[in-house]
Amino acid sequence: MSVNRSAAATVDVPRGLAGVVVTDTEIGDVRGLEGFYHYRQYSAVELAQTRGFEDVWHLLVHGELPDEVQRAAFISETAALRRLPDEVRTALPAIAAASGRSGPLAGMRTALSLLGAAKGFRPVYDIGAADRRRDTLVAAAAVPTLLTALHRLGRGLEPVEPRDDLSYAANYLYMLTGSVPEPKRARAVEQYLISTIDHGFNASTFTARVIASTGADVAACLVGAVGALSGPLHGGAPSRALDTLDAIGTPDRIDPWIRARVLAGDRIMGFGHPVYRTEDPRSRMLRELAQSFGGPRVDFAVEVERHVESILAELKPGRELHTNVEFYAGVVMELCGLPREMFTPTFAAARVVGWSANILEQAEDSKIIRPVARYVGAEAPVAVPV
Amino acid sequence: MSVNRSAAATVDVPRGLAGVVVTDTEIGDVRGLEGFYHYRQYSAVELAQTRGFEDVWHLLVHGELPDEVQRAAFISETAALRRLPDEVRTALPAIAAASGRSGPLAGMRTALSLLGAAKGFRPVYDIGAADRRRDTLVAAAAVPTLLTALHRLGRGLEPVEPRDDLSYAANYLYMLTGSVPEPKRARAVEQYLISTIDHGFNASTFTARVIASTGADVAACLVGAVGALSGPLHGGAPSRALDTLDAIGTPDRIDPWIRARVLAGDRIMGFGHPVYRTEDPRSRMLRELAQSFGGPRVDFAVEVERHVESILAELKPGRELHTNVEFYAGVVMELCGLPREMFTPTFAAARVVGWSANILEQAEDSKIIRPVARYVGAEAPVAVPV
Repeated sequence: MSVNRSAAATVDVPRGLAGVVVTDTEIGDVRGLEGFYHYRQYSAVELAQTRGFEDVWHLLVHGELPDEVQRAAFISETAALRRLPDEVRTALPAIAAASGRSGPLAGMRTALSLLGAAKGFRPVYDIGAADRRRDTLVAAAAVPTLLTALHRLGRGLEPVEPRDDLSYAANYLYMLTGSVPEPKRARAVEQYLISTIDHGFNASTFTARVIASTGADVAACLVGAVGALSGPLHGGAPSRALDTLDAIGTPDRIDPWIRARVLAGDRIMGFGHPVYRTEDPRSRMLRELAQSFGGPRVDFAVEVERHVESILAELKPGRELHTNVEFYAGVVMELCGLPREMFTPTFAAARVVGWSANILEQAEDSKIIRPVARYVGAEAPVAVPV
Repeated sequence: MSVNRSAAATVDVPRGLAGVVVTDTEIGDVRGLEGFYHYRQYSAVELAQTRGFEDVWHLLVHGELPDEVQRAAFISETAALRRLPDEVRTALPAIAAASGRSGPLAGMRTALSLLGAAKGFRPVYDIGAADRRRDTLVAAAAVPTLLTALHRLGRGLEPVEPRDDLSYAANYLYMLTGSVPEPKRARAVEQYLISTIDHGFNASTFTARVIASTGADVAACLVGAVGALSGPLHGGAPSRALDTLDAIGTPDRIDPWIRARVLAGDRIMGFGHPVYRTEDPRSRMLRELAQSFGGPRVDFAVEVERHVESILAELKPGRELHTNVEFYAGVVMELCGLPREMFTPTFAAARVVGWSANILEQAEDSKIIRPVARYVGAEAPVAVPV
């Protein structure tokens, strides 16, 4: 290892910056030991059970829950932003055509980048707080429109224009299918979306803040976050847990299938979380939501969960491994008629609000986030061979 | 401040992760005390003075300078990747039309995102090292084509198709203007590009590595990096230094203009660097390059530099403030016929190779980069008001 020849002192920390405090935040927190997470001062699960998506969106980007007047104004403001500018609308078929192989998040990444440019987003450090907030609303309000249009275009269908008389969640399902959803389904998706807006300092949120710390525009930050979300290590892929249910297939196969996986030391998708030492509070909420629909699929999921926990208790005693958010999220989204390839995009349609809040908070800080690397290569300089 | 209720211990570090070692690297380093930087084991300035862009690109992504056979193969491989896939080419007019107000980096961000999807880029953790390297070549080789096409479309001009018999630098100038450049100009731009490929752990490089650490595809990483580069705090905007020359205007105004700025405590664009305590080695190389062209503009720049240094020595003794890379980079690019709005995109056309090397290195590491935030908001939970 070479000696440190840079001008500044360096600090050694755990790999991957694990546990390193990069910023203070007032947006929320995850208490892994308690199985609890919150947005601002409120339990996120309680918000999901008692409030609409727009209420919680307002809480995240304005810092407080809206009163009646503020709610109406915020719903009206954001609903009006669902419609895409013409330059973006006309480019969507080309984006949809190109994005087939890299998946829907790649399409979202391109479309959001284009939208930010079409709307003339400027660096967050060059504009005031109101303009920054407005840019986050412009971007987030358009995400369901972009995602559903790209999804339909990819299947040879015409995009469905947004309706501004529906809630964020109901309008999302409406643009996806072309039909106004049953209220029960719209509300279930809304609760899922609320519960997924933010969750501690995940890698996409961190990415958004790193880019925001350079002062770049809101689209630059969001596009980076979408890129990080598309990484296999990020998490947020509820379709994988559903794939597990499909792979098991029938109740009689649960026990041998799970035992074989556990004994082989394989990971079981939908189980385990790096922070929670208890049941994932999102999982508990989504299980109850799924059970309110009922049916054989839900019963099967509950039975798989019960078997996994009892087999683990038998084979790996002391190991606390519970369902994570992905497990019942997949079940709930399936019950609500969302196609599997839209599970992660649906997650993104919620998380964009969390990213927005983090970008706005980071933009209040004037310090760039820029760590260092330690050179460990061959001793330099060596003369360049001629 | 709330107590720490998360499951893991936390580590406090300087603001903005300043000096925090986030990774080891074998790509290169900056030695601020010595005024020296290197790529792998070679002086970057020496590489710029003695080698072609493709040689250094090969050094960065393959880890070694090419021999004759490798050079020919690498030039042929990358030249063939300059042509855009049809899905991207047909979408460029829409991207150019939408990107006017957010600037050329916003256009590059969208176009690179689309290119990665059109080429079916897959997560770096799901593919082998050869495929990852190939994806970085596909993206970087196309950057000059994308940038020049967007620039021309924005001015109502047809894009110029790439030629594969010209060097990376000469082809870039050719596609920009439609004429094969004079060899002296092509070589000057090539030297600038080589000197700008990498430079320690800047914010865009860090962004690329954060996204790569989630396992996302090469386009996701590059698009995030472009976003970070577009931030005003990032640096890499040689046009600002040229704006200083323009603002001063004539030799007789140098002294009063500079004195007024220094006495007001204003920053003088093109001067000062956070790492170098000596002259910036890139500045020295680019000054010599500019002087090899000669002319009144170069003489004026040299005179401004001399005045700034002597006025600072008089008014702020002991303060080491020298020209940084931006100062003479702007002069050189102007001499080579590059329009001012293409200065930062030209920088990006070089830095994309540095990002590529960093993405490839990060992809060899399986640890996600994910620090934490400290919740400092109101005590939670408070019951959600009904």
